[in-house]
Amino acid sequence: MVIKPYGFAIWEKIQHALDTMFKETGHENVYFPLFIPKSYLSKEASHVEGFAKECAVVTHYRLKNAEDGSGIVVDETAKLEEELIVRPTSETIIWDTYRKWIQSYRDLPLLYNQWANVVRWEMRTRLFLRTAEFLWQEGHTAHATKEEAITEAEKMMNVYATFAEDFMAMPVIRGLKSESERFAGAEETYCIEALMQDGKALQAGTSHFLGQNFAKAFDVKFATKEGNQEYVWATSWGVSTRLMGALIMTHSDDHGLVLPPKLAPIQVVIVPIYKGEEQLAQLGEHVEGLMKDLRKKGISVKYDNRDTHKPGFKFNEYELKGVPLRIGIGPRDLEQGTYELARRDTLTKESIDAGRIVARIEELLEEIQQNLLDRALSYRESHITEVTDYQEFKKVLEVKGGFISAHWDGTKETEERIKEETKATIRCIPIDQKKESGVCVYSGKPSSGRVLFAKAY
Amino acid sequence: MVIKPYGFAIWEKIQHALDTMFKETGHENVYFPLFIPKSYLSKEASHVEGFAKECAVVTHYRLKNAEDGSGIVVDETAKLEEELIVRPTSETIIWDTYRKWIQSYRDLPLLYNQWANVVRWEMRTRLFLRTAEFLWQEGHTAHATKEEAITEAEKMMNVYATFAEDFMAMPVIRGLKSESERFAGAEETYCIEALMQDGKALQAGTSHFLGQNFAKAFDVKFATKEGNQEYVWATSWGVSTRLMGALIMTHSDDHGLVLPPKLAPIQVVIVPIYKGEEQLAQLGEHVEGLMKDLRKKGISVKYDNRDTHKPGFKFNEYELKGVPLRIGIGPRDLEQGTYELARRDTLTKESIDAGRIVARIEELLEEIQQNLLDRALSYRESHITEVTDYQEFKKVLEVKGGFISAHWDGTKETEERIKEETKATIRCIPIDQKKESGVCVYSGKPSSGRVLFAKAY
Repeated sequence: MVIKPYGFAIWEKIQHALDTMFKETGHENVYFPLFIPKSYLSKEASHVEGFAKECAVVTHYRLKNAEDGSGIVVDETAKLEEELIVRPTSETIIWDTYRKWIQSYRDLPLLYNQWANVVRWEMRTRLFLRTAEFLWQEGHTAHATKEEAITEAEKMMNVYATFAEDFMAMPVIRGLKSESERFAGAEETYCIEALMQDGKALQAGTSHFLGQNFAKAFDVKFATKEGNQEYVWATSWGVSTRLMGALIMTHSDDHGLVLPPKLAPIQVVIVPIYKGEEQLAQLGEHVEGLMKDLRKKGISVKYDNRDTHKPGFKFNEYELKGVPLRIGIGPRDLEQGTYELARRDTLTKESIDAGRIVARIEELLEEIQQNLLDRALSYRESHITEVTDYQEFKKVLEVKGGFISAHWDGTKETEERIKEETKATIRCIPIDQKKESGVCVYSGKPSSGRVLFAKAY
Repeated sequence: MVIKPYGFAIWEKIQHALDTMFKETGHENVYFPLFIPKSYLSKEASHVEGFAKECAVVTHYRLKNAEDGSGIVVDETAKLEEELIVRPTSETIIWDTYRKWIQSYRDLPLLYNQWANVVRWEMRTRLFLRTAEFLWQEGHTAHATKEEAITEAEKMMNVYATFAEDFMAMPVIRGLKSESERFAGAEETYCIEALMQDGKALQAGTSHFLGQNFAKAFDVKFATKEGNQEYVWATSWGVSTRLMGALIMTHSDDHGLVLPPKLAPIQVVIVPIYKGEEQLAQLGEHVEGLMKDLRKKGISVKYDNRDTHKPGFKFNEYELKGVPLRIGIGPRDLEQGTYELARRDTLTKESIDAGRIVARIEELLEEIQQNLLDRALSYRESHITEVTDYQEFKKVLEVKGGFISAHWDGTKETEERIKEETKATIRCIPIDQKKESGVCVYSGKPSSGRVLFAKAY
């Protein structure tokens, strides 16, 4: 995966917004090594079980010229005594370090996060959604009590949900994973689940309550106020460049990307429509003040005066790139003191008096942000279908897609069968699940509440 | 290398300042993969020559349970057809991609940068200065002409120098590397060289004019305006977490770190001196307004009201951490309407009227920033010694250290001999080297100007 400048600028905006939210909730950034000794990874049994099959392994530390002159080869004399794993996630190396940092309750909590690249070897990759290497943040916190750790895990799920809705204009369902979908090493996995326009669900972020599993595996104890030695409680939580995929698939249409203003690298693009150098110069001068006014308001604006491309080409290009607002300006607008303003989300145009343009742009950026969220929410709401029998379950899944709200008997076996037969998995047990007794859509056994199934990326 | 929160906060400030300067000079951020196929690395002969001996090599992509139950082992059936190198630098994978992005002069220049981790296997590591993995930024630009590429390489050297001096308060010498110290694959390496307090030099940043070497190795041609096919011209430039080492070693004293205000995560710390809860509450209320006023001015301030540590302990701690200004406030200050203000750089104290405190802090932060630069500059200036004969060269190197300005005959052989005999290397040929004919300090052969030698990290 290569991330080009425009895509990376979106990722930078995502990073900035999230990083600010992390810091506001008391977290600090740190950096831990890329390479994890194999023995560390092996210490937490279910963790290694979950990641062993997709690890990139460093075995040597030198190359050399082949003796037969055939080129560069691995120098077999430079074999590592212990192989290094390229981190698929950093719980193990971080908890090995936390042992040295935590002695007493006074050292707790540790509320740390890192922005990093990780590698999970994938046989079938899919850009932004499933790539061998991806960029992410991983929070790793240490607490004195179980309650505090659970509160932290829930808080970060809520931070992710707020970010998804307020910045990405992407509605999400907050929930708990079923046991078989839990993070390897977690006691409980909280998640936010989004629905893409093709009816498939996408796990957009997870926050794990890790119990004392890693503290036990790495022998991390602390002296309590009362002087007892106890194992430390842990959480970890992460979102990744997968959010870029989510953003693209939530809002795009047949014309290309549609970006929510809060994450758009360019919020307003101005395209001059002109004949000849002189008109171009005139228009250039005319829009200078407007650009200054917009920038003063913190609105990012680009003036595209390239003479190598026609306005129509530019219009298409910025539609493709999802720029929320486009201003077209030609000599007639100049005469009349107007601007032509086009919205990317609705593809509608309006003519605005120069005196009102800045205020109108501010209004519209907010309106677009809200409209995208509303649109996605209304799509999502109309794609949660309650079903009571398995035939209906399969039919809805096939014909309509989306989330299926159904009773489940709570067993791994049923979950596994449904997955085998339909490819649908339990996306989550919603946090706001209402207690409602019923019978499992598959087994007919008793159930105490509905869960959400869907096909997922 | 683990970077803890306080250290990482300094790195974030370095990143932010540099990233802003890169963007102001027209660069955009991108992201390229961590893993480089071995065959890519091999394409530019001198490049692979330079990096082959320190490459971490990924050979497998899966672990498994050992058949004898002895634990987790590498799955030999999951051997990669072609080994992957963990990037030591990214010229090869980037130029392999640029081939797809560049067809015509219209596609040029490409002015891209990435913030990334890289790995160079080091036998003797030294925290921040020489670690197997480090964090850095690497700029990779592509140009239509040689002149434009050279201008870019020089511009980025100057950006680095400005950053070092304006933010790090670290004076640097701008220069060119001799051929043997050049980057593997470069035609010319520009550098900034700093002097540490122990008299050793430290290469703080490099900017390379790569000629057409990588374009030729990766077959990257473009159609000129005239319709000819020509190879593209390249630069690359980078600074790393090594700058953290430079920062520490430039300003620290026997009491600990001394941070320039522009890079200090905490610029002002306030420590209450009190007896009992009531006094603490009073002081807390009293400083609230001051903190608000400072924050309004963009000054970062921390109020340390921990009741687990005494004021004296806190004073030491913030000295150790290099916080530029410390305010002590006790009941007597409250009565008299004063604050006690202590400077970290000079370890001096003054008592300031509450009404003047904000203005005085603003003044002092500027003064400290300037004082650190002046102090480091005066040390550096007094540690550049002109020598004319080799005995003196050796004596100065041993007794005084620092840079030695000496004539050199321009040959690799002389450079090599001096290095073997004294451990001093040519740090750079200063950009502002004045033409001055003389004789080589080692060989007695003619020389056209002085170069700077030093022992280096």
